[in-house]
Amino acid sequence: MTTLAFSTQVQDLMPEVEARMRGQTDGYHPSLKKALDQLLDSGGKRVRPTVVLLVSSMLGVDKEDSLNLAAAVELLHTATLVHDDLIDGSTLRRGSPTLNSTWNAPATILAGDFLFSQAASLGARVDSTEVMRMFAGTLSTIVNGEIAQIFERNSVTHREDYNQRIYAKTATMFEMAARAPAYLVGVEDQYSEALRVYGYSVGMAFQIVDDVLDFSSDTKTLGKPVASDLRIGLLTLPAICYLESHPDDARLKQFQSGYQLDPPIMEDLVQDIRKSGAVEQARAEADQLVQGAVNSLDQFPLSPEREALADLANYVVERLH
Amino acid sequence: MTTLAFSTQVQDLMPEVEARMRGQTDGYHPSLKKALDQLLDSGGKRVRPTVVLLVSSMLGVDKEDSLNLAAAVELLHTATLVHDDLIDGSTLRRGSPTLNSTWNAPATILAGDFLFSQAASLGARVDSTEVMRMFAGTLSTIVNGEIAQIFERNSVTHREDYNQRIYAKTATMFEMAARAPAYLVGVEDQYSEALRVYGYSVGMAFQIVDDVLDFSSDTKTLGKPVASDLRIGLLTLPAICYLESHPDDARLKQFQSGYQLDPPIMEDLVQDIRKSGAVEQARAEADQLVQGAVNSLDQFPLSPEREALADLANYVVERLH
Repeated sequence: MTTLAFSTQVQDLMPEVEARMRGQTDGYHPSLKKALDQLLDSGGKRVRPTVVLLVSSMLGVDKEDSLNLAAAVELLHTATLVHDDLIDGSTLRRGSPTLNSTWNAPATILAGDFLFSQAASLGARVDSTEVMRMFAGTLSTIVNGEIAQIFERNSVTHREDYNQRIYAKTATMFEMAARAPAYLVGVEDQYSEALRVYGYSVGMAFQIVDDVLDFSSDTKTLGKPVASDLRIGLLTLPAICYLESHPDDARLKQFQSGYQLDPPIMEDLVQDIRKSGAVEQARAEADQLVQGAVNSLDQFPLSPEREALADLANYVVERLH
Repeated sequence: MTTLAFSTQVQDLMPEVEARMRGQTDGYHPSLKKALDQLLDSGGKRVRPTVVLLVSSMLGVDKEDSLNLAAAVELLHTATLVHDDLIDGSTLRRGSPTLNSTWNAPATILAGDFLFSQAASLGARVDSTEVMRMFAGTLSTIVNGEIAQIFERNSVTHREDYNQRIYAKTATMFEMAARAPAYLVGVEDQYSEALRVYGYSVGMAFQIVDDVLDFSSDTKTLGKPVASDLRIGLLTLPAICYLESHPDDARLKQFQSGYQLDPPIMEDLVQDIRKSGAVEQARAEADQLVQGAVNSLDQFPLSPEREALADLANYVVERLH
């Protein structure tokens, strides 16, 4: 991946964000430093801290605060991935070995816990209990979504359930990244609401695009079978769009009742969904969300940061083209 | 267990603390409510929130704040137990089934994470970033101690290592319980330091007493074999006192090198430690810590709360008599 246009505005600050994340293991057991280095070395586009830094700069947030907040948000995101990968038994993330593929389960659980507390430590450096409440609330929302998914696998078949699930999985963190800086300068409600809408819309689009790629891409690009979520019993937007236009499809009914489909039947279903226009419909919904995100920025005077935030929103759907 | 004298002062407040903890699952997946109820129903003496409430009352902390802080501290403690029991594979705690004996590992990991974030939510209701920093730091210390224990099993054989371990395991949480209320009224440093010493000393004594009971009690009372820590490769204070007075005991040397002792040799070692006076020496150290805790309260004018805090400190060692 080449340098992303929306990052240039804040690329000078990112090494400092990185350093603050890595500094959170100073004074603790050396194994924790190794774990965090391994996690951060595996890369990632740092989209969330970029949102924090751009919004902070647009609002005139103190630089120290914006760096700590950006580092806290990315570290919290990283912490959630540690437990996610352990729970899913994933051995690779972004092509690098996951922590649970290197460490045993007890050590991995504790490493995740440590990163939660150190993310909170970073967040608490910013002197705002509103930010801390948002931080804690975001983590609760994410975890609650995962719990619901464990207890209700196969039963999430409606758009509303899907929206709740991807809000918890992805959008809540973007919402925090975009909105938290507003607490530090005390902007009027209409502005913090516009930022919330921006973060929400970008986050929802981000997850929908992932779910569309899962259907529209190929096994080689994905590094896993097409429609992998559907295969493990999870309906995502393309499948839900298909279900809405084919409410009597017996295969999806069987699926909703908690039964696994035989592999050839599953293949047919995947192909039918791909051919039905449902994937394009889901893609259009992501486009619409991104348009909403860009529109919400109209509240703010034109600035290089506002432009970069719009670029970032557009980049989310450009991954599809 | 009958009503404990030190609790009477705050027993009217405890149901409200309990209600605030349980309220933290409102609006989330119903399984989380079941999990938290199961955890809280299994009892516990609520010593930590009692410390918070007594100190808060002594310092004149706002009642709302003290209730939220007490609930946050106990919920954080509860959250740490969820992952501890999963990691240790414990099926019972205080005679009740642990969460990991009822739920699978993924759900148990997530339930612990949820309680961490909801404990932080409660803590953030108190408008103090100092309290939030202490909260995050306490959790980091606890988890760091457990990580060290995983990576360095068998190598902790010195008093200093032991002190670090039990500080992380138990004393840091008591330190927070005693000291955090001071942030909410802005007392002078000497007073917050006295409270820190109180919490530290009570917490250290609490853990030493547990470790002494592990040697001095019997299998029936403990519900597990005597010296269970030693048997899994962990030296606690009685064993360390014995080692200090018998530096050339070949059995402990073998142990330090990471080798398991044969069962009959282990039995002999346990009996030798019990007969050596090392258990009494460890007990005397707990007494001394409690005396220090009580003395640190001298900074404060005599009050029913101060008396109750002294009673609570004394209760910690009374469990031995």
